[in-house]
Amino acid sequence: MRTALAAALLIMSTQESAPKVVSPEIGPDRQVTFRVLAPQAREVVLTGEFLKGPKPFTKTENGVWSVTVGPIDPEIYNYNFTIDGVRTIDPANPDVKTGSTPSTISSVLEVRGDRPAFYDPQAVPHGEVRTHWYASKSLQTTRRLTVYTPPGYDGNPQARFPVLYLFHGANADETAWYRLGRANLILDNALAAGASKPFIVVMPFGYGVPPNGPSRPGENTARFSQDLIEDVVPYIDGRYRTIADREHRAIVGLSMGGGQALSIGLSHLDLFSHVGGFSSGLGQASEFPKTYARAIADAAKVNRDARLIWIGCGNEDGAFPQSKSFSEFLTAHEIRHTFKETGGAHTWMVWRRYLKEIAPLLFKDAKGSDVQ
Amino acid sequence: MRTALAAALLIMSTQESAPKVVSPEIGPDRQVTFRVLAPQAREVVLTGEFLKGPKPFTKTENGVWSVTVGPIDPEIYNYNFTIDGVRTIDPANPDVKTGSTPSTISSVLEVRGDRPAFYDPQAVPHGEVRTHWYASKSLQTTRRLTVYTPPGYDGNPQARFPVLYLFHGANADETAWYRLGRANLILDNALAAGASKPFIVVMPFGYGVPPNGPSRPGENTARFSQDLIEDVVPYIDGRYRTIADREHRAIVGLSMGGGQALSIGLSHLDLFSHVGGFSSGLGQASEFPKTYARAIADAAKVNRDARLIWIGCGNEDGAFPQSKSFSEFLTAHEIRHTFKETGGAHTWMVWRRYLKEIAPLLFKDAKGSDVQ
Repeated sequence: MRTALAAALLIMSTQESAPKVVSPEIGPDRQVTFRVLAPQAREVVLTGEFLKGPKPFTKTENGVWSVTVGPIDPEIYNYNFTIDGVRTIDPANPDVKTGSTPSTISSVLEVRGDRPAFYDPQAVPHGEVRTHWYASKSLQTTRRLTVYTPPGYDGNPQARFPVLYLFHGANADETAWYRLGRANLILDNALAAGASKPFIVVMPFGYGVPPNGPSRPGENTARFSQDLIEDVVPYIDGRYRTIADREHRAIVGLSMGGGQALSIGLSHLDLFSHVGGFSSGLGQASEFPKTYARAIADAAKVNRDARLIWIGCGNEDGAFPQSKSFSEFLTAHEIRHTFKETGGAHTWMVWRRYLKEIAPLLFKDAKGSDVQ
Repeated sequence: MRTALAAALLIMSTQESAPKVVSPEIGPDRQVTFRVLAPQAREVVLTGEFLKGPKPFTKTENGVWSVTVGPIDPEIYNYNFTIDGVRTIDPANPDVKTGSTPSTISSVLEVRGDRPAFYDPQAVPHGEVRTHWYASKSLQTTRRLTVYTPPGYDGNPQARFPVLYLFHGANADETAWYRLGRANLILDNALAAGASKPFIVVMPFGYGVPPNGPSRPGENTARFSQDLIEDVVPYIDGRYRTIADREHRAIVGLSMGGGQALSIGLSHLDLFSHVGGFSSGLGQASEFPKTYARAIADAAKVNRDARLIWIGCGNEDGAFPQSKSFSEFLTAHEIRHTFKETGGAHTWMVWRRYLKEIAPLLFKDAKGSDVQ
């Protein structure tokens, strides 16, 4: 087993041996250099959320390819290398974005500014992120579920808290909102700044069908909705000190999860009072009257029951026309809501900001809350 | 922003569009086919823990390279593709192993057997995995820490529990023992089978210096040890219902973490009573008398205080001679311990089995425990 021996020796010696190729290397001027050792390659190309289009590498000495871009604004970005036509990650960067399908695999570039960002860990009280394995009766399987508890949750055993149900997008999973979205750190920081109330966040796995498998239109949301309402919400109310009523439940999602949050939320105002969709995957506008039949049947009731309907989308996002059409649809049916057009594309850069923006709007007028 | 639009449309349409290339594809006979679309490549090679050595792909039609291996025994394996000399992952497989350095990045192949394995989620009560962000005074930074609480922890607010401190290896991080090691599922299953007692598991980040940076010999373990003893243990005893005495603390690790667990544990039997090292990174045998000076100075006390000293290593592992030498060193100093030689190399396949094997040995004779 020469390979096993070699692997073991490599592991033993890693602290001594620096990697041959450093990538990405962030300069003091925030110019960023990417490198890859690929002596046999004929073409290496960089794509990334910090670029307007693909950028070719140049072959330098010893088979190392290199490209420098920037200065790049402080942010967290995804990027990929394409080596002779094969889209892959930066082999020298341990920070890899993963999800539930391969299309989401990217390397991650984090450019720091002079001060911590709103999504950085700061010297404030921190909440916890908990992973549960729960038995879904609806889907007849064991599934994972992520829960954020705010700072002080364990230390205040008498306090009860509102709950935000927060959904990821297509190709992602139940870890996305904290691993990529930094939801826990954004909320820790907002709470420490006095900008928002403390609440629990529940991040379920958004697929009720296999992420890459075939499914009928609407099947995924229907199955996910059943799991959410019949399994997840009772599981959470049974295990956490929630305030288990509609006034203290919000439902928000991004992309595919935005469509889920809006369609489930606006059809179940008996369960939820705050509803939000970020860059939502909403389907054809011609289907809105059917999907939102329950809401438009009694707009006055929606306006009475919904404390917040928040729809946001970046105007560089391919999904922007859908969000705009949906806002117009709600307006035509006299359903009050906030429609927020921002800059930005279909990226976590936008969604982290949206979470920061809506956090202060959640549960601010809720009655019966015994939170601080 | 054509790229943003294209990305958004891709995300919207993913449930409809199957990936062009399926990899890995596991046949009913457990033959596994790997594929990659690489029309421009001249050489594609597969390496993996299920192979004795590298295996070349064959170029088939439409630029797709393919190789079939097996049958492969049910297990969880790491593998990589090397395309024209660049070591990378399988671009069609969303299951990616990551860590704290790039050398650990691999794709993951999970071959299932006819029945669930000891590390699979089964229909048993499940514990939780919690991620904390804690302020380390020793290291003057905010660090992450993973904690497993056994099933029933939240439901039995009067019960207190022993604690296993469990360390990862080089290149890994504080998520490795549950993401790759399946520690939570192994312990859920052992507990459900009546094979072990319930205990909390604390999985800290094992680096006190940057994982890829330069450091003096011993510096990493010294800094990690200070963080463990002065920050982590008090943090855990302050937040969890632990039994906060040496009888109810175990310290175990693998590879680099095995060396940490043995050196810290055997020098701090005032804090820990059960000590274990899996495939441990122990350094030079000539250094043992210095590193373990405190233990060998009073072997009788060690034999009185240590409820378990467990050293295991696979005989195909490059680290095997170190573990064997260390066992001989303890024997020469008349320190009672278990030395377990098994098959296997330096892999998670071995470490998952070791955790299953030692779980029943932990806290079985502990006094003063009010656990079941």
